[in-house]
Amino acid sequence: MITRDEIVSFATMFDPQPFHLDEEAAKVSLFKGLAASGIHTFGASVRLLLESTFYLANGLISTGGEIQWKKPVRPGDVLRLRIEISDVVTDPDSDRGIVTLKVETLNQNGEVVQTFTPRIVAFKKSRNGVPASQGAS
Amino acid sequence: MITRDEIVSFATMFDPQPFHLDEEAAKVSLFKGLAASGIHTFGASVRLLLESTFYLANGLISTGGEIQWKKPVRPGDVLRLRIEISDVVTDPDSDRGIVTLKVETLNQNGEVVQTFTPRIVAFKKSRNGVPASQGAS
Repeated sequence: MITRDEIVSFATMFDPQPFHLDEEAAKVSLFKGLAASGIHTFGASVRLLLESTFYLANGLISTGGEIQWKKPVRPGDVLRLRIEISDVVTDPDSDRGIVTLKVETLNQNGEVVQTFTPRIVAFKKSRNGVPASQGAS
Repeated sequence: MITRDEIVSFATMFDPQPFHLDEEAAKVSLFKGLAASGIHTFGASVRLLLESTFYLANGLISTGGEIQWKKPVRPGDVLRLRIEISDVVTDPDSDRGIVTLKVETLNQNGEVVQTFTPRIVAFKKSRNGVPASQGAS
């Protein structure tokens, strides 16, 4: 769950705008109430992705992707992910490929609040020499 | 400046992978040394954008964009931005338009570590009725 205090504390560090900091100021904003910074939603989603069943040897390293913020995240919201592998590109001449995901972040009402389509580096072997499909410790 | 402690503390909350937490583990990773989480670089860049001369009445609210991580951000790195307005789309039937930026984040060596192309909501009038071009308090 994302709490009011977490929203304010994150925004104070990285996105100190009134609609992320103060209920009264947020009421007259486009958000019509306190809303988490999009970067906060992004970070919370990455945390959930790392805790998910999607796993790659050597960890999840992304070169980037398209992010879309669809709906505000409110104090008390409980987020979860819907993850789809949308593309896998391998290069026979390289030690790695790129896996593209479609990661949707949903709130407790099943509404999609964010989508992100990260391109993730996938190695053919883990960096300690064990084939990646056998997993790394 | 981004410090080692900030890198570890951010990663502990949102991106707890060995190469963001521990120097020794990071050495044998793709990053070849401790590196900030991309989300951390993203947040630090948003903070710099808010402190920049780019200003919109009602604040900066983005619907999303393409993010690319180009190079690792290391402990001690000092980041700055290069901001370009790449597109402005207005709709005569709407109270708002979309301004697209190209935001490059550079380190102290002038290397681009991240690019982000946010689409930002721009209102024709500020929400307290003053034309947006006159600014809001």
